[in-house]
Amino acid sequence: MSTEPFRVGIAGLGTVGASVVEILGRQAGTLAQRSGRPIRVVAVSARDRARDRGVALDGLTWFDDPVALARSGEIDCFVELIGGAEGAAKEAVEAALASGKHVVTANKALLARHGPQLARQAEAAGLALAFEAAAAGGVPVVKTLREALSANRITRLYGILNGTCNYILSRMEADGCSFAECLAAAQALGYAEADPTFDIDGFDTAHKLAILTALAFGSEVDSDAIYVEGIRQIAPLDLRMADELGFRIKLLGVAERTATGIEQRVHPTMVPKSSSIAQVMGVLNAVTIDADALGELTLIGPGAGGAATASAVISDVADLAAGIVGPPFGRPAATLDPSARAPMQRHEGGYYVRLTVHDRPGVAAGVATRMAESQISIESILQKRPPGSAPSSDKHGRSGAPVPLVLITYAATEAAIRGVLELIAADGLVSEEPQVIRIERD
Amino acid sequence: MSTEPFRVGIAGLGTVGASVVEILGRQAGTLAQRSGRPIRVVAVSARDRARDRGVALDGLTWFDDPVALARSGEIDCFVELIGGAEGAAKEAVEAALASGKHVVTANKALLARHGPQLARQAEAAGLALAFEAAAAGGVPVVKTLREALSANRITRLYGILNGTCNYILSRMEADGCSFAECLAAAQALGYAEADPTFDIDGFDTAHKLAILTALAFGSEVDSDAIYVEGIRQIAPLDLRMADELGFRIKLLGVAERTATGIEQRVHPTMVPKSSSIAQVMGVLNAVTIDADALGELTLIGPGAGGAATASAVISDVADLAAGIVGPPFGRPAATLDPSARAPMQRHEGGYYVRLTVHDRPGVAAGVATRMAESQISIESILQKRPPGSAPSSDKHGRSGAPVPLVLITYAATEAAIRGVLELIAADGLVSEEPQVIRIERD
Repeated sequence: MSTEPFRVGIAGLGTVGASVVEILGRQAGTLAQRSGRPIRVVAVSARDRARDRGVALDGLTWFDDPVALARSGEIDCFVELIGGAEGAAKEAVEAALASGKHVVTANKALLARHGPQLARQAEAAGLALAFEAAAAGGVPVVKTLREALSANRITRLYGILNGTCNYILSRMEADGCSFAECLAAAQALGYAEADPTFDIDGFDTAHKLAILTALAFGSEVDSDAIYVEGIRQIAPLDLRMADELGFRIKLLGVAERTATGIEQRVHPTMVPKSSSIAQVMGVLNAVTIDADALGELTLIGPGAGGAATASAVISDVADLAAGIVGPPFGRPAATLDPSARAPMQRHEGGYYVRLTVHDRPGVAAGVATRMAESQISIESILQKRPPGSAPSSDKHGRSGAPVPLVLITYAATEAAIRGVLELIAADGLVSEEPQVIRIERD
Repeated sequence: MSTEPFRVGIAGLGTVGASVVEILGRQAGTLAQRSGRPIRVVAVSARDRARDRGVALDGLTWFDDPVALARSGEIDCFVELIGGAEGAAKEAVEAALASGKHVVTANKALLARHGPQLARQAEAAGLALAFEAAAAGGVPVVKTLREALSANRITRLYGILNGTCNYILSRMEADGCSFAECLAAAQALGYAEADPTFDIDGFDTAHKLAILTALAFGSEVDSDAIYVEGIRQIAPLDLRMADELGFRIKLLGVAERTATGIEQRVHPTMVPKSSSIAQVMGVLNAVTIDADALGELTLIGPGAGGAATASAVISDVADLAAGIVGPPFGRPAATLDPSARAPMQRHEGGYYVRLTVHDRPGVAAGVATRMAESQISIESILQKRPPGSAPSSDKHGRSGAPVPLVLITYAATEAAIRGVLELIAADGLVSEEPQVIRIERD
C-alpha cells in the first residue's frame, strides 16, 4: 500500500459536499485499505465561508473561486458539486481537466449538455470524468452499465429517476389525493422544491436518461431528442383505474433500441403491478435494464439525499485513488455513435386511453368502431360511473352526463392513437380532452 | 487503444464456458473499445474433445489437462469453470496464480472454502482473482459491494441466492402444490438437479453467502459459521398463512452485524409482501444491502443460466483486460478480520410459529400464557380450521382434532423461542412438531 495520499478538492458544500467531507473522514481507514492509498480532502470551495455545515473544515485550504481550486496544484481530483449546465461548474470542470486533475461530478445538467465534449477532453489528457452520482443518486447504475454489463448488448432501459415525482404518485395512489395536494405535501416534507417545474415536468428525469442512454447504447448524449411529459395531468381517477386494471403509474425515463434508432422518452407510464419497478414507492429510484446475455436486471435504491449521493461520489473517488481510470462513457468518446433518434410518432406500445364520454347509447360502440377502423386492437375496456355522480335519467340508466370510458390497447403506434383520438373527438363522442398514458411491460 | 490482445484460456466448457466463448466472439468489437484492447480466447480445456458445444473452437489450443492450460505461456488470464472446492479446479487456479496468470472463476464452493488463501496468493503476485459469477450469477453484487459501496459500512445483507428454491417456493405459493410436487416440476424443467440436496437444503445459498459476507463485512470467509436450514419442511399451509398475514416465504441468506459479531444464516424466511425482495418470483436472484450512507440497495436479476453467468465472467475478464486489478475481497486479504461469529441462539428477530394444537378449550390461552411467561410478545395470532376438516363436535364448536394455531412474535431470541416451544410441548398442547420460520423486515 502506498502512503502517498490521493488529494481531493471539493467545490460546493451543500448537503452532498458536506457529507462527502464527513464520510471521507469517518471511513478513512477502510477507504485507504480498499484503494491502496489514503484519500484526503485537502481543499474546498463554496460561496459562504462563514456558514456552519456541521462538518469540520479546519486544516483545509479555502478557495472562494472554484476555478482556482480546480487549477490548484494541491489536488489530484476535483469534485464538482456546484450544479448547473453552464457557468462556474463548467468552467471549473474544464479548468480541472486542463490542469491535469481527475474530475468527479454529480452534475446531470452539465453532463446531459456537455458530457461527450468533456469526456473527449478528459480522455485526451488521460484523466477521468466520473459521474456515478449524476444518474440515479446512490444507485450504482453508471458502474453497472459501464463495467458490469460490458458483455451485453442493451435493448431497453427504463427507470424511476426522480424521487419527487415518485413520492407524489405514490401518495396520490395511497391517499387518493389530487396532484396539487400531494405536491404541497411533498414540498412541506422537503421532497419538492418551491418551484417544482424541473422535477414534475420531467426535465430532471430527461437529463438523467440522456446520460444513461449514452452509456447503455454507446450513442452521443442527445437530450434534445427526448420526448418529455410530466405528471401534472395525472388524476386520482387514473390511479384508481390503473389499480383496477392491474397497473401502477410511474414517471419513467425509457430508452429503447428500435428499428429506426434509439427512442428516448419521459412520461407517466403504466407498469404491471407484478413488475419489480411497480413496487418502488416513495422517493426511491429504480432502473431496469434489458440486456441480451444477462436478461433483465433491476437496481432499486435512494436516488437523492446528501449521504446517498455522497456514497456514489466517493465510490468514484475511491476508484480513481485505486488507479482505475477508463473512458467516461465506457468506450472512447470518439467512438460514440451519432444519436439516431427515433421519432415519438413511431413509438409503438400499449396505451391506456381514458375518454370522458357522454353517457348515451352508442357511445362505447362508436369509440370501439373508430378503434377497429384504425386497426387498433383493444385488450380491455372499462366503463364506470364515478361514485357520487348523477343518478341515471333515461330508461337505459344513462344520464347523458360525462362518464369515464377507459381502453387498454394492444401495441399501436403513437401516430395511430393520436389519429383515432382526433376522429373520436370529431365524432362528438367526448366532452373533455382524452387522457393518454403509455404502457411499459417487463 | 492497444492492439495487443488480452489472451484468455477457459477451463470447463459447459453451458457457461460455451457461452463465454460465444459472447467474447460476438461482442469482440465493443469489448475491445471498452477495455482498450482486444480480448481473445486462445485456449480451452474440457473433458470431452469430441462433444459438440454449439460453438466454434477452431484455432483454439486444446488442453486435456486444465492445470497445463493454467500454466501455459499462451494466456494472460485463466477462466476456471470446472467447479468443486478441491481437485482439478483448485489445482488449476493455484497453478495459474503461481505462473503469473490472472484468474476469473465462477466457483463458489472453491471460494467459500479457500477464498482468502487464494486471494493472498493472488495479491502477493500482483494478480487478480475475480469472481463476480460466484455469488449471484449474473447479478453484479460483487462489484457493487467491492466498488460501488466502498464509502459505506454495511449493517446487513440478505438475498435470494438460489433460483431453484425460489422457483419451488413461488410455485408452491401460486399453485398450492406440495414441496415434493413442485420439486418434481422444477426437475422436469431443468431448474433442479436429479439430486437436489445441494440446492434445497441451503448449501448452495450458504456458499454464496459466505463470499458476500466477507466482501460486505471485511471478514474472513467462514462457511462453517453459517446456520443452514433448507425448504423441505415448508408446507402449502405455511404459504397460505404467510399470505394472510402479509408475508411471503423466501429462502434467504442473511448476514448481519450484531453486538456479538457477524451473524450468518440461511433459512426459509417470512418477508413483508411490500418489500422489493418479496416480488422476486421464479428462478431470479435478489440481494438487498443495508448500507449506512447509501441506505437500502436492492439488485434483482438472473442468478443462473449459461449466458447470464457468462455475462458476469466476461465483466471480470474485461476489467482485467482494462488493467483493473484490485484485491479480490476489496481490501488486502491480510486485513480481513477474523470471523467473529454470532451464535444462532442469540439471533433476535420476529418469528412465525405454527403449532398444531388440539382444538379444545384453553389451548390458545395455554400457549399465550407460556409466551407471556417467557417474555415473548405476540404481534398477531391466527387460528383457522383448515377447509374440509372435521365438523365441530362439542357445544363450543371444538372437535378436539388437530388445528393450526399461528403466532407472529415481536423480536425475541432464538433461545427464548426454542425454550417456550419445549414448555408448550411438555404441557401437551401440541400434537405435532411446531413449524418455526424467522421473519426478516426491510
